[in-house]
Amino acid sequence: MNDTHSAIMTAMTLDEATWLMDTALGRRPADLAIVNANLVNVYTGEILPNQGVCVSGRWIAYTGEDPRTSIGRETRVIDAAGKTVIPGLIDGHTHISNPCLPSEFLRYVMKGGTTSLIAEMMEPYPVAGIDGAIDFAEALGDQPIKIFTTMPAMVSISHACRGIALDDLRILADRPETVGIGESYWQAVIQSPEVYLPALLETRRRGMVLEGHTAGASTRKLQAYTAMGITSCHEPVKPMEVLERLRLGVNVMLREGGVRKDLEVLAGILETGVDLRRVSVCTDSVAPDDLVSNGYLECVVQKAIDCGFAPMDAIRMATLNVAEHFHLDHLIGGIAPGRYADLVVIPDIRTIRAEWVVSNGRVIAEKGRLLIQPRRHPFCEASLSTIHLPRRMEAADFDVASPAKGPRVRVRAMEMVTDLVTAERRLDLPVAEGRISADPQKDIVKIAAIDRRITPGKTFTGFIKGLHMTHGAVAISAAWDSTDIIVAGANEDDMATAVNRILDLQGGFVICAGGRVVEEISLPVFGYMSLEPIETVAEKLNRMARVIREMGVTFPDPALSFVTLTGAAIPYLRICEEGYVNLKDGLTGGLFPDDSGEGEH
Amino acid sequence: MNDTHSAIMTAMTLDEATWLMDTALGRRPADLAIVNANLVNVYTGEILPNQGVCVSGRWIAYTGEDPRTSIGRETRVIDAAGKTVIPGLIDGHTHISNPCLPSEFLRYVMKGGTTSLIAEMMEPYPVAGIDGAIDFAEALGDQPIKIFTTMPAMVSISHACRGIALDDLRILADRPETVGIGESYWQAVIQSPEVYLPALLETRRRGMVLEGHTAGASTRKLQAYTAMGITSCHEPVKPMEVLERLRLGVNVMLREGGVRKDLEVLAGILETGVDLRRVSVCTDSVAPDDLVSNGYLECVVQKAIDCGFAPMDAIRMATLNVAEHFHLDHLIGGIAPGRYADLVVIPDIRTIRAEWVVSNGRVIAEKGRLLIQPRRHPFCEASLSTIHLPRRMEAADFDVASPAKGPRVRVRAMEMVTDLVTAERRLDLPVAEGRISADPQKDIVKIAAIDRRITPGKTFTGFIKGLHMTHGAVAISAAWDSTDIIVAGANEDDMATAVNRILDLQGGFVICAGGRVVEEISLPVFGYMSLEPIETVAEKLNRMARVIREMGVTFPDPALSFVTLTGAAIPYLRICEEGYVNLKDGLTGGLFPDDSGEGEH
Repeated sequence: MNDTHSAIMTAMTLDEATWLMDTALGRRPADLAIVNANLVNVYTGEILPNQGVCVSGRWIAYTGEDPRTSIGRETRVIDAAGKTVIPGLIDGHTHISNPCLPSEFLRYVMKGGTTSLIAEMMEPYPVAGIDGAIDFAEALGDQPIKIFTTMPAMVSISHACRGIALDDLRILADRPETVGIGESYWQAVIQSPEVYLPALLETRRRGMVLEGHTAGASTRKLQAYTAMGITSCHEPVKPMEVLERLRLGVNVMLREGGVRKDLEVLAGILETGVDLRRVSVCTDSVAPDDLVSNGYLECVVQKAIDCGFAPMDAIRMATLNVAEHFHLDHLIGGIAPGRYADLVVIPDIRTIRAEWVVSNGRVIAEKGRLLIQPRRHPFCEASLSTIHLPRRMEAADFDVASPAKGPRVRVRAMEMVTDLVTAERRLDLPVAEGRISADPQKDIVKIAAIDRRITPGKTFTGFIKGLHMTHGAVAISAAWDSTDIIVAGANEDDMATAVNRILDLQGGFVICAGGRVVEEISLPVFGYMSLEPIETVAEKLNRMARVIREMGVTFPDPALSFVTLTGAAIPYLRICEEGYVNLKDGLTGGLFPDDSGEGEH
Repeated sequence: MNDTHSAIMTAMTLDEATWLMDTALGRRPADLAIVNANLVNVYTGEILPNQGVCVSGRWIAYTGEDPRTSIGRETRVIDAAGKTVIPGLIDGHTHISNPCLPSEFLRYVMKGGTTSLIAEMMEPYPVAGIDGAIDFAEALGDQPIKIFTTMPAMVSISHACRGIALDDLRILADRPETVGIGESYWQAVIQSPEVYLPALLETRRRGMVLEGHTAGASTRKLQAYTAMGITSCHEPVKPMEVLERLRLGVNVMLREGGVRKDLEVLAGILETGVDLRRVSVCTDSVAPDDLVSNGYLECVVQKAIDCGFAPMDAIRMATLNVAEHFHLDHLIGGIAPGRYADLVVIPDIRTIRAEWVVSNGRVIAEKGRLLIQPRRHPFCEASLSTIHLPRRMEAADFDVASPAKGPRVRVRAMEMVTDLVTAERRLDLPVAEGRISADPQKDIVKIAAIDRRITPGKTFTGFIKGLHMTHGAVAISAAWDSTDIIVAGANEDDMATAVNRILDLQGGFVICAGGRVVEEISLPVFGYMSLEPIETVAEKLNRMARVIREMGVTFPDPALSFVTLTGAAIPYLRICEEGYVNLKDGLTGGLFPDDSGEGEH
């Protein structure tokens, strides 16, 4: 066995070890001590009164009833005055890809008491390649809290960016913050094992974790997938789905975040009485507005308590249970000597509100105020130049030629069934001058996916029903699981204008109407992150959502509805630059019922 | 992160993965299936009725109520007929050094239902170097069950073999079966951090586990030690010691084996009501007679149930809890798709008696009969030639010159307080012709430690009280934590004869009286393993124990009492070729109260 995960993060130096030993023995004063606390011992399940925690550098040196022996004049002492100290919270599955810089996102994550994240890498990799992925990983490194990463499994409906290249996997796997491979959607793995298994097996061979995504899977298909070594899933939406996965040895992360909020329903697992040691909570991402207005993982833990989980279990679901799943429990997830000094003082075990947050031995927040700012990373050229088109788009690029001469033609189309789920529909559309027209008055508009990196400009234009868009166009360069810009429009001129604006901005979310840009947010980092403060981004996104609603679109988070149209795990009909893809069979198809879909641009 | 633990053991091939997926999906018949079983689900804590387990090659493909879909004509089907299936048992801490070959030891381990061991490597390394250690690791590889290893921390009271060389550690750490570094005794680490910390920190840097040994440690010293990253201990002998360690995030292994049997007392931990998820059981080694007569880890699990542990907890203590501690829970420790097919069918959850044992997908034992034999390893020259002396010993080699001229002289001596624990005593001994005499009639005999490898022939001779040895000599080359032969005798001629016989045998346990060998067992592998069948070894050891008892020694396991005299973790006065060592301060001293001990040969 060679170096393993988190070498840099874990490497305790000989000096540190010696200081730590001396502090524990009372020979050297602690750098920091929390005294007079109720200590939540996640290992035993006890709440121990009158405890102290002594810290040497980044590490916990001592916990117990006699912290005074390790306290000297230089020791910073926090008197918890009977409040409760818990381990720093760990989000086991998140995406730092909502349209803010990591340094902006972290401001709100940190002050709530989250001190470790396990972050997906699937967003930067397809749009900026291995250089961009490394740049992203470096943006997450050397922050006041620890960010571990999972390598992108790169499930995509587009053949162009399917599966991480093994050479790239090896580069990322050797990095110290890498703990495994990120979510691989089950259907794709079963439908195309030859594409995805090599990376999963290589990760497994290295003893790293394989994160799962089993939305909707059950019985044999679920087992065929988990048998590959998948040991987590954050997708259950019913208590019985939680139970089925737990029985298969899968660590289930109950999701409560920007994409879905499942905790209230999933608290039904309590009725089964099963052991919760392999149950965690995660956010799976939190939208900027929610993050700024409400907070991060601390809200999820509070909600778990409010939904009926015992406070000890709720806290373990965001600490020890997560650490154990990732095989990081020797480093994080509990308060004990030799673990990172990641500590949160809260009023009491039922009230998850951070009064002090200690991360890597430093007090990073106090009473909701951030004391140490996250580091702002200077992103490299590979990350900042990700919108590649061979030329500016024109309205005619979105023309769809009819294969037949009649006045109407039958086409395959997407229909929004919910704000995220789509179905495949056949629609009879009018043909004028050989071109098939959308019909906004009947709630049918055009939807196009344009590759911005691998085959720049390659475009597939289809039709979508259920957006209720009456006019204008919306384009966004943050389309999921792909290298695409996604644009929906009642009008081809507006579609071209919106995409061209994204090209000029090198990434953005743009609303056009009447041939001009109505609202926009620039997303120049990877085409999905803004350089602005998170509060500004949240406000802009809210304003843009209002404008889109004024265009007729009724969905609660219109941007999410658009970017997920390319997503490889949201049922059922999806779109990419190669055509439509029905996730039931994974096959790519074109606009016409008997068409393969290739060449539709 | 590069390759991690158990690369060879875990490497699932693409073919295997494809077969596994196909078997789960019902497209390819399982190789083996167990049907009509109550399945003990260690993940949820449930016992699920009417379950089947389908196996493809080495791996579990499916578990659930519908195994038939994966069963074909070629599938071997075991009808459990309502019996109970549990995961293969895992011994988290054992020494495969009792005087039998691994292939002999495994015969009895396997048929009881143990399918994974984590074995120490501290015995072969000092006496046969890195070549011997690798040879030993290879003897443990490619067996019908999985044997993971921990690298030797090499705590020794002798300066000559203290601490594993970092170059050797790196060689072992890169091996696929290595999961961590073995037990490092806490006193030594705190007394000599400069010797032991580099290896502990290098192991920690690699993300591997650091096994602990905290006998007698408490509060600050215990914390100073565990702060180095130590995450297990198998040494508690009182329930409150278990609790203190659990609170520090230490995985406590309750020991029930050849050295001590602590389970009955430690079951007192149940009264505290603390969570048992980080509690395991282990044997720490089992003597041949016990192994042959009673069995192995299955007896420990049974005893845990008999002592009041809930059967589910008892089984977890030898499966999931152990696997999680070693970060091997994605591979072993539970019955789920993608885990190794390690399964034991038992009558019911309260009766731990293996009716079928499946390991790596093969039925290795049925109703107490072994179906697949362990592999007998051909040990290499480095392992077979480990007794190095510059010349044959003579009686005069054990003479002890008096530093003074009087008829009596005061010396430091060991006194046996129990069969294992010693104390330091001052004794006034007679001097004749300038030489200090033992006094068997007053229960004082000579005790000598002779280096057999690093400084061949280097000898320290002291005195010991409490053996009750009336005549003759006993020598053994299996002395713990050292490179020494240990010899005790009422007579210097017998001492020399016994040691010379060990030289001739290249390892052994020899009893001499009246100038000739009375009983012996040859231990030619590393000087501590016999080539004979385990039943023969058990019988010989019993016979030798009887002979030693006839010589006056009353201890239950006299061989154990002798070999532990060099042990670096058994209080308090120990002996090695450099002199006496008092473990309270770790200092080496000589025969006379103000003597440094060096040069006493």
